[in-house]
Amino acid sequence: MNDFSFELQAQCPDTGARAGVFHTPHGIVETPRFMPVGTLANVKTVTPAHLKDAGAQMVLSNTYHLHLQPGEDIVAQAGGLHKFMAWPGPILTDSGGFQVFSLSDLRSITDEGVKFRSPRDGRMINITPEKSIEIQNALGADVIMAFDECAPPGVGRDAVEQAMDRTYGWLKRCISANQRQDQALFGIVQGGEYLDLRAEAARQLVDLDLPGYAIGGVSVGEAPEIIDQVVKHTAPLLPDNKLRYLMGVGSYREMARAIGHGIDVFDCVIPTRLARHGCALVDGERWNLKNARFREDFEMIDQGCPCYTCQNFSRAYISHLLRSQELLAYTLLSIHNITELIHFTQRIRQSILNGTFRQDFARWLDEPIH
Amino acid sequence: MNDFSFELQAQCPDTGARAGVFHTPHGIVETPRFMPVGTLANVKTVTPAHLKDAGAQMVLSNTYHLHLQPGEDIVAQAGGLHKFMAWPGPILTDSGGFQVFSLSDLRSITDEGVKFRSPRDGRMINITPEKSIEIQNALGADVIMAFDECAPPGVGRDAVEQAMDRTYGWLKRCISANQRQDQALFGIVQGGEYLDLRAEAARQLVDLDLPGYAIGGVSVGEAPEIIDQVVKHTAPLLPDNKLRYLMGVGSYREMARAIGHGIDVFDCVIPTRLARHGCALVDGERWNLKNARFREDFEMIDQGCPCYTCQNFSRAYISHLLRSQELLAYTLLSIHNITELIHFTQRIRQSILNGTFRQDFARWLDEPIH
Ligand SMILES: [Zn+2]
Ligand SMILES: [Zn+2]
Repeated sequence: MNDFSFELQAQCPDTGARAGVFHTPHGIVETPRFMPVGTLANVKTVTPAHLKDAGAQMVLSNTYHLHLQPGEDIVAQAGGLHKFMAWPGPILTDSGGFQVFSLSDLRSITDEGVKFRSPRDGRMINITPEKSIEIQNALGADVIMAFDECAPPGVGRDAVEQAMDRTYGWLKRCISANQRQDQALFGIVQGGEYLDLRAEAARQLVDLDLPGYAIGGVSVGEAPEIIDQVVKHTAPLLPDNKLRYLMGVGSYREMARAIGHGIDVFDCVIPTRLARHGCALVDGERWNLKNARFREDFEMIDQGCPCYTCQNFSRAYISHLLRSQELLAYTLLSIHNITELIHFTQRIRQSILNGTFRQDFARWLDEPIH
Repeated sequence: MNDFSFELQAQCPDTGARAGVFHTPHGIVETPRFMPVGTLANVKTVTPAHLKDAGAQMVLSNTYHLHLQPGEDIVAQAGGLHKFMAWPGPILTDSGGFQVFSLSDLRSITDEGVKFRSPRDGRMINITPEKSIEIQNALGADVIMAFDECAPPGVGRDAVEQAMDRTYGWLKRCISANQRQDQALFGIVQGGEYLDLRAEAARQLVDLDLPGYAIGGVSVGEAPEIIDQVVKHTAPLLPDNKLRYLMGVGSYREMARAIGHGIDVFDCVIPTRLARHGCALVDGERWNLKNARFREDFEMIDQGCPCYTCQNFSRAYISHLLRSQELLAYTLLSIHNITELIHFTQRIRQSILNGTFRQDFARWLDEPIH
């Protein structure tokens, strides 16, 4: 058994926030920390060299997408995902559940698994818990996720409870199916907006003594105050000595508040998606650099940002690249945006270590959620 | 006056090939050397950090494109092109002549200058020799080029001679117009396929004792054997102690042969253009990595290539990125292709220094041109 321990370094005296170190066979993750998303075995437009400079530690990749293209066999033949995408640090793969339920032409959901048509070539694909783990074992990430049913919001308590029960059954099958001891299989707490169901799901998972836990189904369209309540009531039910991962969340406020509730890591596609729209994340705001006011603005994007982009280029330059439809604009904005969100979580980590998180981040913790 | 000297280090005993060092205010260029093209103040999809690793020394940028977007005023306000695009090394700007004559909706050519409609917003633009130099002075490259008339191929001797005479008149106006002593103004030898006109043009330019010379109008659609003849007869007429630049050429054979005729530097958009088509340059061949045979090919693109791409990624990975339409594919292929052409000229340089150029590159020098 490899070491996937979570080492608690400091706890906030005023909130549930914690700073720690998560160990993996490919290096450590200093928490709290934002994880960039590399859906198709690359973080869009960013080379691993620039990704490392951006402060990335654990990177997420998507099982569903990689199963469709290039297929897990090719990744396995390449020597696994780390070698294939040239990311020597920790990697996490999701289970494919979220994408199967939200992106595909779904044909049937049974206790056995899910059948859907490939959006790539129309062939029928069968994903079961065993299949998801088989794919993830072939991909070879450090952290792999249990295959879960994500009920869409608004389906009602009965449907959520049914999905939760099924997810629990699937988790046990995932544990049996897992062939690799050098990958940590995390369980996902479901239960929708129902706090009692979340609590029940958390208890079931904790009893299985998994190497880590995720809170799922929170970024599928619910109101931010619902997410906040779910995280607030669920995170404290998870063991202190295990990593806690809030899936699909990456806004400043949501991350700051979730950290206050005891969450350690996050993932979100927002930094690269905003980049492709010409937007820079600056201290919680989104600036569209195509805007005329940036044409002759020779400042760096953000004075306080240590990123490659801010150290070398002006807003005017990036505005010029965007106006010229030069793809380098997306690379430079992605580097900045990823650095910005990682740096935000690093600053939170430092303030937790200093014992000043509650005061330092009051702006994000106290503002009303809407 | 700044130092733009060309220091001759070695001459091939069997050909006109030479190895040297060209000095500029922003660093040296070890010749022979390929220069990547950064049309709109960026080498497409490649950050300056990766460009430096690729071995780039002098980089070319296009006056015509930068005049249209963002405009030279913005570049000047940014502190000049080096600062704007974060390239601290030598930069060369062309005069805009080639683009004006080939890309724009041309309205009139007179001895005064050229009038054309902006393809960007339809406004009439007037480019004179004085205007070209004014723009290039504002951009601030190390090497700037005289504004020349490029006669299209096949127009006949009279039209070529007229364009050549006009180009000479314009050159003298460019010299008078140039306001900066820290920029070296190069003249361009025109004269089409007519070797006697080329010789006459070369003599005129040499009499002006310029800091460097280019051979122009050779990559505008003529047959490769015509280009080879023109370069063979023109390059030796240029002074030994000045840099010689062959414009718009970047194929292995053309570069090798032109170096054999005494050329020092080259520029061409081919490495980034091929990358956008999914192609890698490998030892003179073009491989389309979308091809099915690369799907499960886990070798690096080129065993002997020192580039970031070859050191980290497989053909299968790049093939996967191309199939996924991931823009990172273009970045990785551009890095490889640029490195490959620079490395090709670096190997030629080394063989000239070793006195073995004629033998080492016989493959390129002896094969029939077609
Ligand atoms: Zn930045
Ligand atoms: Zn290479």
